[in-house]
Amino acid sequence: MLRAFALLFALLAGPAFAQTGDLIVEKRTFEMPSYTTVGGQTIKNVKIGWQAAGTLNADRSNAILITHFFSGTSHAFGKYTPGDKAAGYWDSIIGPGKLIDTNQYFVISSDTLVNLNTGVPTVVTTGPASVNPDTGKPYAMSFPVVSIKDFVNVQKALIDSLGIKRLHTVMGASMGALQAYEWAASYPDMVGRIIPVIGQAQPNPYLVGWLSAWGQPITLDPKWNGGDYYGKEPPTEGLKAALKVITLHAQHFDWAEKTFGNAPAEEGKDPGKAFGNRFKIEQALDQAAAGRAAVSDANHLLYLVKANQLAGADISKIKSPALVIYAPTDLIFYAPNIEDEVSKLRANGAAVDVAQLTGPNGHLNGVLAIGQAADKIKALLAK
Amino acid sequence: MLRAFALLFALLAGPAFAQTGDLIVEKRTFEMPSYTTVGGQTIKNVKIGWQAAGTLNADRSNAILITHFFSGTSHAFGKYTPGDKAAGYWDSIIGPGKLIDTNQYFVISSDTLVNLNTGVPTVVTTGPASVNPDTGKPYAMSFPVVSIKDFVNVQKALIDSLGIKRLHTVMGASMGALQAYEWAASYPDMVGRIIPVIGQAQPNPYLVGWLSAWGQPITLDPKWNGGDYYGKEPPTEGLKAALKVITLHAQHFDWAEKTFGNAPAEEGKDPGKAFGNRFKIEQALDQAAAGRAAVSDANHLLYLVKANQLAGADISKIKSPALVIYAPTDLIFYAPNIEDEVSKLRANGAAVDVAQLTGPNGHLNGVLAIGQAADKIKALLAK
Repeated sequence: MLRAFALLFALLAGPAFAQTGDLIVEKRTFEMPSYTTVGGQTIKNVKIGWQAAGTLNADRSNAILITHFFSGTSHAFGKYTPGDKAAGYWDSIIGPGKLIDTNQYFVISSDTLVNLNTGVPTVVTTGPASVNPDTGKPYAMSFPVVSIKDFVNVQKALIDSLGIKRLHTVMGASMGALQAYEWAASYPDMVGRIIPVIGQAQPNPYLVGWLSAWGQPITLDPKWNGGDYYGKEPPTEGLKAALKVITLHAQHFDWAEKTFGNAPAEEGKDPGKAFGNRFKIEQALDQAAAGRAAVSDANHLLYLVKANQLAGADISKIKSPALVIYAPTDLIFYAPNIEDEVSKLRANGAAVDVAQLTGPNGHLNGVLAIGQAADKIKALLAK
Repeated sequence: MLRAFALLFALLAGPAFAQTGDLIVEKRTFEMPSYTTVGGQTIKNVKIGWQAAGTLNADRSNAILITHFFSGTSHAFGKYTPGDKAAGYWDSIIGPGKLIDTNQYFVISSDTLVNLNTGVPTVVTTGPASVNPDTGKPYAMSFPVVSIKDFVNVQKALIDSLGIKRLHTVMGASMGALQAYEWAASYPDMVGRIIPVIGQAQPNPYLVGWLSAWGQPITLDPKWNGGDYYGKEPPTEGLKAALKVITLHAQHFDWAEKTFGNAPAEEGKDPGKAFGNRFKIEQALDQAAAGRAAVSDANHLLYLVKANQLAGADISKIKSPALVIYAPTDLIFYAPNIEDEVSKLRANGAAVDVAQLTGPNGHLNGVLAIGQAADKIKALLAK
């Protein structure tokens, strides 16, 4: 009988919902007239996009915040329209009746400041590509430096606006983990639990160096022009090169071996015969990067690099129970570094459990193989 | 009395030698009127530099060949003049009375084709920066594609010219390991033993992708100009960016943590306060890269990328006893991949021993910490 009601409800919700059974979510915009950064600069008319599913309960204690990764958006779960090809990146674990059950929790996720995907219509963000109200022109590199803590502060304003005094859980992968740690360190009374996935409170200096290497192809592209390319041809080649490095870094040699081997990009075009003849993995990386570059902004990528370099949540302030999920084969956030942080968290007295993810995808196992940690996620949420 | 004679000899050899006790080596040039590449193209007037120490014995059975790494040269041991600040990269293990004892062995090392260091006066190589005798102009990107096997074939011509029928041992680090494997696979009757250090017979496809990422900043630099920059301003910014990625990749997060931490490049210039304020590790990488770029050639780097991508020694043909030395923390040639190759070599019936190097330097432990494998190297050489 309950199932019948559920079905009726689904039908009433619209034919699309009934057809697919997908969770349909709406993208909304949160606005702040002004925001002052950690670095002390004021940004007017700040906007970020967000989406939610489920219902906030009477005491507003069932909200779970999902924070996104470097190249991600708020789109962690659901579809915006039934015709969408892909659901959100963690749709396998978030939704009605799923591990993070939107029948029980109010799950919310927002775009960050300086979000990479300015060309994705559903993304709402504020960054170098945004128009500076004082000049009527895009900020470009005059946009203030922002950090992970700024991302969290703007999210907090959004959470405050919903009347939520305390988040049940903050969970995020990679840059999302940096944000989860920063939430727990900056607003310990507002955070019930954290689930940092494939990330740390502070990047190792080696990653600070790599982040610099990620961004540098952009500034080599003459079309970058010191960041002043809006209304002109953008630095697409530099942006593609940056995204190629990031894509590769987020993967693993097992993936490369299994997916490409040493095959040439084109049959009959031996890479040993001509300089332009390439290997399949090179072609695949270039194609993936070109697809991403078409909807990304180069200056936003540089600002994300900076924001990640600046991440540095103060572990000593973190008391929330935590489930730290990581991939031992991760080549961006290395297991020994994550294990060191777990020791430090435990030394603070925080109750910290850990879960490991396996698979051929290195860092990306944190997105693709998250289901492996289902039991431990369930246990933490129920605590 | 013998000591006294040795001292007298040293004094007769010149005051410099007596002052320092250093092994002084002479850089020589090997020339081939023409060489036909594995890809089937002919290069006229091929030159590579080489150096040797010790004396070839009567039956010419005591020659050890040292093959160099990506950014290396023949300078594995000794000094060219007593005033040289630095000795060769493996001088700690090669020389009179040292682990690889030049009183016992004739140790030889050559520059490869397309050697990176065209601006180092002692380096002799043939590549895109060389003048094409047919046109009187530098080859630039018209230089034929060359592979690790071509490096080995040219070395073989050098070894043949010395009347050496069989090398006692071939030993090399990283790209030098690729060459050692290729020697053993291509010329099994000429190779007594191999000591591949921090490298494989064939790079994993993941490394093929990374090699592409290493080279790409060069082609983004407008001064690269399709490789045609000789006599003009070279693509120094692109070359620096490429060398920065390579430097970082060859290191490790322990090194970054211990050497730099999260210090800013300049005291008082908080990286969070302005986009141009950087971290110390970024500054150090840029400085190191600038130093290397000043003596390197951008096209040669691209040709080295290609040569390494093309490496693929046929393991099934390798029968030589081997000592495989690797660093478990290596982030270029990963331990699991090296261990797989060791299993394959053993499955062929080759007698293979392994040694592991530790230290904070990841891949570079293979150069900096080679002394840790001294006992196993000694044992293999004595076999």
